[in-house]
Amino acid sequence: MLRSLNSGSLALLTDLYQLTMAYAHWCAADPEREAVFNLFFREAPFGQAFALAAGLEDVRDYLADFAFAPDDIDYLRGLTDARGGRLFEPAFLDYLATLRFTGDVDAVPEGTAVFPREPMLRVRAPILQAQLLETALLNLVNFPTLIATKAARMARAAGGDPVLDFGLRKAHGPQAGVIAARAAYIGGCAATANVLAGKLFDIPVRGTHAHSWVMAFDDELDAFLRYAEALPNNCIFLVDTYDTRSGIDNAIAAGRQLRERGHEMLGIRLDSGDLGALAREARARLDAAGFPDARIAASSSLDEHRIAELKQGGAPIVLWGVGTRLTTGAPDGALDGVYKLGAIRDDDGRWRQRAKRSDTADKQTLAGSLQVRRFLDADGRPLADWLYDDEVVGADFRAGRLLAGGEARALPAAASTRDLLQPLVRGGRPVGDPPDLTSIREHAAGECSAFAAVTGYEVALEARLADAQGDK
Amino acid sequence: MLRSLNSGSLALLTDLYQLTMAYAHWCAADPEREAVFNLFFREAPFGQAFALAAGLEDVRDYLADFAFAPDDIDYLRGLTDARGGRLFEPAFLDYLATLRFTGDVDAVPEGTAVFPREPMLRVRAPILQAQLLETALLNLVNFPTLIATKAARMARAAGGDPVLDFGLRKAHGPQAGVIAARAAYIGGCAATANVLAGKLFDIPVRGTHAHSWVMAFDDELDAFLRYAEALPNNCIFLVDTYDTRSGIDNAIAAGRQLRERGHEMLGIRLDSGDLGALAREARARLDAAGFPDARIAASSSLDEHRIAELKQGGAPIVLWGVGTRLTTGAPDGALDGVYKLGAIRDDDGRWRQRAKRSDTADKQTLAGSLQVRRFLDADGRPLADWLYDDEVVGADFRAGRLLAGGEARALPAAASTRDLLQPLVRGGRPVGDPPDLTSIREHAAGECSAFAAVTGYEVALEARLADAQGDK
Repeated sequence: MLRSLNSGSLALLTDLYQLTMAYAHWCAADPEREAVFNLFFREAPFGQAFALAAGLEDVRDYLADFAFAPDDIDYLRGLTDARGGRLFEPAFLDYLATLRFTGDVDAVPEGTAVFPREPMLRVRAPILQAQLLETALLNLVNFPTLIATKAARMARAAGGDPVLDFGLRKAHGPQAGVIAARAAYIGGCAATANVLAGKLFDIPVRGTHAHSWVMAFDDELDAFLRYAEALPNNCIFLVDTYDTRSGIDNAIAAGRQLRERGHEMLGIRLDSGDLGALAREARARLDAAGFPDARIAASSSLDEHRIAELKQGGAPIVLWGVGTRLTTGAPDGALDGVYKLGAIRDDDGRWRQRAKRSDTADKQTLAGSLQVRRFLDADGRPLADWLYDDEVVGADFRAGRLLAGGEARALPAAASTRDLLQPLVRGGRPVGDPPDLTSIREHAAGECSAFAAVTGYEVALEARLADAQGDK
Repeated sequence: MLRSLNSGSLALLTDLYQLTMAYAHWCAADPEREAVFNLFFREAPFGQAFALAAGLEDVRDYLADFAFAPDDIDYLRGLTDARGGRLFEPAFLDYLATLRFTGDVDAVPEGTAVFPREPMLRVRAPILQAQLLETALLNLVNFPTLIATKAARMARAAGGDPVLDFGLRKAHGPQAGVIAARAAYIGGCAATANVLAGKLFDIPVRGTHAHSWVMAFDDELDAFLRYAEALPNNCIFLVDTYDTRSGIDNAIAAGRQLRERGHEMLGIRLDSGDLGALAREARARLDAAGFPDARIAASSSLDEHRIAELKQGGAPIVLWGVGTRLTTGAPDGALDGVYKLGAIRDDDGRWRQRAKRSDTADKQTLAGSLQVRRFLDADGRPLADWLYDDEVVGADFRAGRLLAGGEARALPAAASTRDLLQPLVRGGRPVGDPPDLTSIREHAAGECSAFAAVTGYEVALEARLADAQGDK
């Protein structure tokens, strides 16, 4: 399977119903009707107010490469319906065989703080194309956004201490581990253990040794010394293979021998037991032994809550290895991003707004071609977001209504504004060059810091957009 | 990033510490010391007794393709240590450049029921190689095992009704969606919406239409009719875009027109609201309107618990679309698989058993080269599993001790036995051909059925293995 996934385009990475709908549009002779879809989430993950957008760079590649390969078409040709007849007409498959994405896509830059129901991405394209993209776009955006958001929480809990991504072994397959490492770096992780991610994205990589290194030798001190011989400037000794207290003794002994050779032990790592108590004990013994600069790293089922708890308890841990709970985005496991039709052109070329009603209130959607304007004060602090429609109904910003509750709102007295959605693709071609990962990461840090002090942030609908929701 | 993942080998898909340990072994001049590692999980997911093994076929490909590409080596050459010096000596990188996997791997066949602390996979290889594989092996096995196990729970809750994988949009990236679809099919899902997975593995694909299809037209009935025109034998109308009750009316009206044309509506789908009540109402109205064979499908945050609840409540739903909670393996999110050194050869060629001690009892590991013998009665029903060591300490099976608690156990009076670990790779080359997915799925169904009636299943250590744990 690993081998078969090495294909250029991911056009078949979709739910079958996107193809049956595409076929039905083709049969209805309206595949070119222009439509606008908005991609947004209904609830921010981890109970927080916003998420950090990520995954948009993959969207750029996906759209640029979008094409059905000949063997994709062959596969579709073989699909049958409930009566055993062919599911798709050959002429439709000929149409798919030459189909490329020709539309426009706007997206919030990676690392941007986005609030529930705000568009993270907007597609304006012939409806057949726009519909076909739904599943892949959600797949590409949901997961990294979840992980970038989680990593930011962990980095914040660690209060400036480096947080390292150790999650690859628990990630949902090879690619998930790589996507997670990149998203975690955007969110604020300082480095990853994942070497492939390090190579692909120039993320700093970190790692020293595991229990099995110690177990490969008859004696723990011997194991430490042999490791130190090979990598004298990369020694963080893992001290809990047999007994943490004797592990600390052996680390100190190995540290002394290292020092005699002109090197310094970087620190020790704790991976089990009462991390707070063990860290305090280790700190005292390292200090007493003349190793005040040896750092104490910890791993073992850590998340932002556990990190915060240990920090509050005064644990002298300064390096945090996080695995499962980062890379799987626990406990949420998924961002609830959706992709909904917001507007479609009539046969006469006039835009018509669209929204989904539902027996379940939170499944209702906003109609329109949605854009977000963020209002900032003179110090660049965010004041409020206003959703508006820059295409179908237009906007004038004289009045707004809260997205939650509908209460009237006056325009914020802002020093500046910025529109969150930026052009990503025009006429099927990527716009400009993707930002480098370092600047994305800095942008994310800026967003986290700007919103850290904000509570009760208001998201409003510009009045014309709000009014337009009434008539679907 | 999607593009850059299209590489043949995944040798760099590892944690950096595997490479620093490999380097230290190389420096210590013992990279060829033969070692045995056991891969197992400590706790079965979802609070159940066992997990369904999956992911082993990817392991076969990964090992056969294992090689560092020239640009992998270039990347490693650029890594530096804490003092800014090169992390690895050039001669070590030359060694890596020609390294291939030369060892033996045994694994339980995919679809097999495996209990906590039983080996799912065992590697016997030069320690440098065996160590390098750890991260990727865990990555390749942990996730599909989680999902196959989850799918089996859902299939069981649905009691024979088809369960469909709708999870791609919430999967942790493109590849995770494909891995999950395959694992879900092994576990008992009847089909997937994921077209790429359908193509790659010949899994049945299913899908009809989404809300956006309905929203693309001015009128719901018009939308249904147009869909029916294109795909008259693939009509499961989604009825909750605006109002479920009028949606059912429109589905019935569309069904009548379909019937006039000689086709039958397959059914309707509910995706929000009180699924049980709506399904009962829909059933009554479909029956009254002359559509007793139209099936009611449901989706919307379903998992095994919700399916069981709806079934128990008598909801006439017969087709279950499951998404997020299947594909992310919620709520666990990860299998806690680990890969631990069990034995290593001395300089004199003698095997030495190894185990990890820990301040945290559940992090202790079993020493030895572990195999599992499953004892079966005359009807093929499993009686007990005994772990033994077929290499380092040998076994005689006259006595055993429970893995949990250590109580003595006599050999089960079995009609037959089978050893769960089977040869997967010998001398670095795959053994035989991989089983086809259909037979893996049948094997999994057999395992689920065999263990369905079993409670308090006993896993024991053969006496010599048990005794050998004492002296590590």
